[in-house]
Amino acid sequence: MAMNYNQLKSVPGFSWLGENIGIKDKSLDFGVIVSESKCSCAAVFTKNNLPGAPVIVGKKKIKSGQIQAVIVNSKNANVATGLAGIEDAEKMSIWAAEALGIDNSLVIPCSTGVIGQRLPLEKIRLGCKTIPEKLGYSAKYIENFSRAILTTDTYPKFCADYVGNSILLGIAKGSGMIEPNMATMLSFFVTDAQLSSKQLQIMLKRVVDKSFNRISIDSDTSTSDTVIILANGLAGPIDTKKFEETFTKSSIKLAKQIARDGEGASKLIELTVSGAKSQSMALQISKSIINSPLVKTAIHGADPNWGRFVMAIGKVFDYPVSLDDICIIFGNEDKIQKITANNINSNNVNLDAIENLLKQKEVFIEVIVGNGGFTETVWGCDLTKGYIEENAFYTT
Amino acid sequence: MAMNYNQLKSVPGFSWLGENIGIKDKSLDFGVIVSESKCSCAAVFTKNNLPGAPVIVGKKKIKSGQIQAVIVNSKNANVATGLAGIEDAEKMSIWAAEALGIDNSLVIPCSTGVIGQRLPLEKIRLGCKTIPEKLGYSAKYIENFSRAILTTDTYPKFCADYVGNSILLGIAKGSGMIEPNMATMLSFFVTDAQLSSKQLQIMLKRVVDKSFNRISIDSDTSTSDTVIILANGLAGPIDTKKFEETFTKSSIKLAKQIARDGEGASKLIELTVSGAKSQSMALQISKSIINSPLVKTAIHGADPNWGRFVMAIGKVFDYPVSLDDICIIFGNEDKIQKITANNINSNNVNLDAIENLLKQKEVFIEVIVGNGGFTETVWGCDLTKGYIEENAFYTT
Repeated sequence: MAMNYNQLKSVPGFSWLGENIGIKDKSLDFGVIVSESKCSCAAVFTKNNLPGAPVIVGKKKIKSGQIQAVIVNSKNANVATGLAGIEDAEKMSIWAAEALGIDNSLVIPCSTGVIGQRLPLEKIRLGCKTIPEKLGYSAKYIENFSRAILTTDTYPKFCADYVGNSILLGIAKGSGMIEPNMATMLSFFVTDAQLSSKQLQIMLKRVVDKSFNRISIDSDTSTSDTVIILANGLAGPIDTKKFEETFTKSSIKLAKQIARDGEGASKLIELTVSGAKSQSMALQISKSIINSPLVKTAIHGADPNWGRFVMAIGKVFDYPVSLDDICIIFGNEDKIQKITANNINSNNVNLDAIENLLKQKEVFIEVIVGNGGFTETVWGCDLTKGYIEENAFYTT
Repeated sequence: MAMNYNQLKSVPGFSWLGENIGIKDKSLDFGVIVSESKCSCAAVFTKNNLPGAPVIVGKKKIKSGQIQAVIVNSKNANVATGLAGIEDAEKMSIWAAEALGIDNSLVIPCSTGVIGQRLPLEKIRLGCKTIPEKLGYSAKYIENFSRAILTTDTYPKFCADYVGNSILLGIAKGSGMIEPNMATMLSFFVTDAQLSSKQLQIMLKRVVDKSFNRISIDSDTSTSDTVIILANGLAGPIDTKKFEETFTKSSIKLAKQIARDGEGASKLIELTVSGAKSQSMALQISKSIINSPLVKTAIHGADPNWGRFVMAIGKVFDYPVSLDDICIIFGNEDKIQKITANNINSNNVNLDAIENLLKQKEVFIEVIVGNGGFTETVWGCDLTKGYIEENAFYTT
């Protein structure tokens, strides 16, 4: 996937680093974001009942509404490590704070990678020591950061947008254990817009619900998912409505990048369920379809097996749908093909054309389930042998 | 898999056939069970809101409590075919009834295979015509029936047991689109025990809940799932408690055969969740684990990635579990290996021994989630490239 590196825009007041400290191999595994001044901030974390130590620590720290630095390691998630793991996460942020000469309460630690193993503390301690001399604000530093947080992702994910005088930069990583039941991965936003922590928190919840909570890769919910936004205010006040619009668009762009780069994925699926009688009905049916292994494998094979959609709609027990009301529309804009029970039984469907639409790298599907007024759009990916390959032997 | 063909026992009063009528290719695709006399009967059907036409027809017919024949085709499920499909299912049973000289109300039609295509009616009509001359009661005929109902199964599934003077024979097929949310496939039981339809219905619901509702292959819920039992009474009255015990054991045996033969599966997983505070907690956690693609791929790769179990326990949002309470026990009987947050963090776990246990064809895992008194056992299979292969190109 060719990334648009023009999107790697510096944000005034923020500096970055991404380097290798040898956690697992020689790839980048340690990243830091530092602001010149204290930032307003907001975060959402995984709903998994057994969150990682950094999530436990981060939830406490975000409450103050002031953060100045984020420190991240990949290759080890520091999850299921008990009290010792929480101490490790705290040490990580203490060492970073010491090196930066700021208060420990201003540093949020994040980790992603394998679950159930202790962090290699000595390597992290040494990594923290040299943070100040390695920081930089240019595109190369931001790119290194975006690479340092990756696990099984095949490319870094970032997105920059302007709102008035300010800039919003988002950096994210996926790419397995992802289900739309809260944020889904690590995702960091920084902006020089002037916004209070309270404003950011209200906004972030709404934004995440429309973006990261609408993607699904494998129905598993990570123990580490975290979305953080830091605002240093250097660009002054901002039209908050416009900012939220841009924040939502940026987040959807990042969410789609994550779905497209799902483990082993060969294509991005954009699925809209419309005509539902309630928002919950639209969401539950869209989740059932986008998570169905049989739908995902059929799309992988460009197989116009519409019956699997019917099965996935029918297994949402709370919201019965009549077969006569179902219409599945493949494609978008002027190239579309429709299937209904009626036209398929009278052989009025061009299955070859649908197969061609399913062969594209971006697959657009709309499923109409009645004449209600509620709609949801979700993003996912196909299920391939690559997923099996990556996940059958991940720790060993 | 070597089948134990000694299990193909004739049941007095029942005759069978399994043949090819050319629905898709040259494999057996048409099967019939006929009783000499009217039988007591009971059935459970899929909970999918968009069930196949045969399920809609069968639900009506079973209400009379009297059935004498079952007619089944594979390769086409007659699902999502609307009113025309319901007429087709009715025609199937009318033609079979005519050929057998019995009332149409006494014949149940079943179909399994691809969804969304009309049945090839003329082939079925011709197949029905010659039913009487092709029926037989010996093992060969039963085996042909057991093969005729298969779709992606790699071997036929059957199981015979004695209760007092009577015999109970079960025949089933899997093997994708299977989730423990009701029966899961086609499964037919015949017995010469004397039991009323009412007795059978009460018993069947309990039996299915302990067996077919406890297996999971891919979390998708089929539109065709059906379990039927016919009892002709020739062996006279029976100890109903003993019968139910045997019926439960037979059903668990068949359910395990189905899980073991899940699409692309290379091993059977038996998972017990114990120490739960309620039955629902035990079941929800066991379903979350057995359905997790990341757990299933780890077991496929014999990767002792215990963190994925923690993730799957943690994503059951309704039932929080403390990390300190979790103990994962691999293996059974005298060969067991335990993982807790405590012993893994102090490196007291023999990961090589766990890897060896995970390499077996039958993988036994117990997950303790607390000190409550509730336990559930479920069965599933690993997730492999074979699953992708079978499902990416199923209709085409």
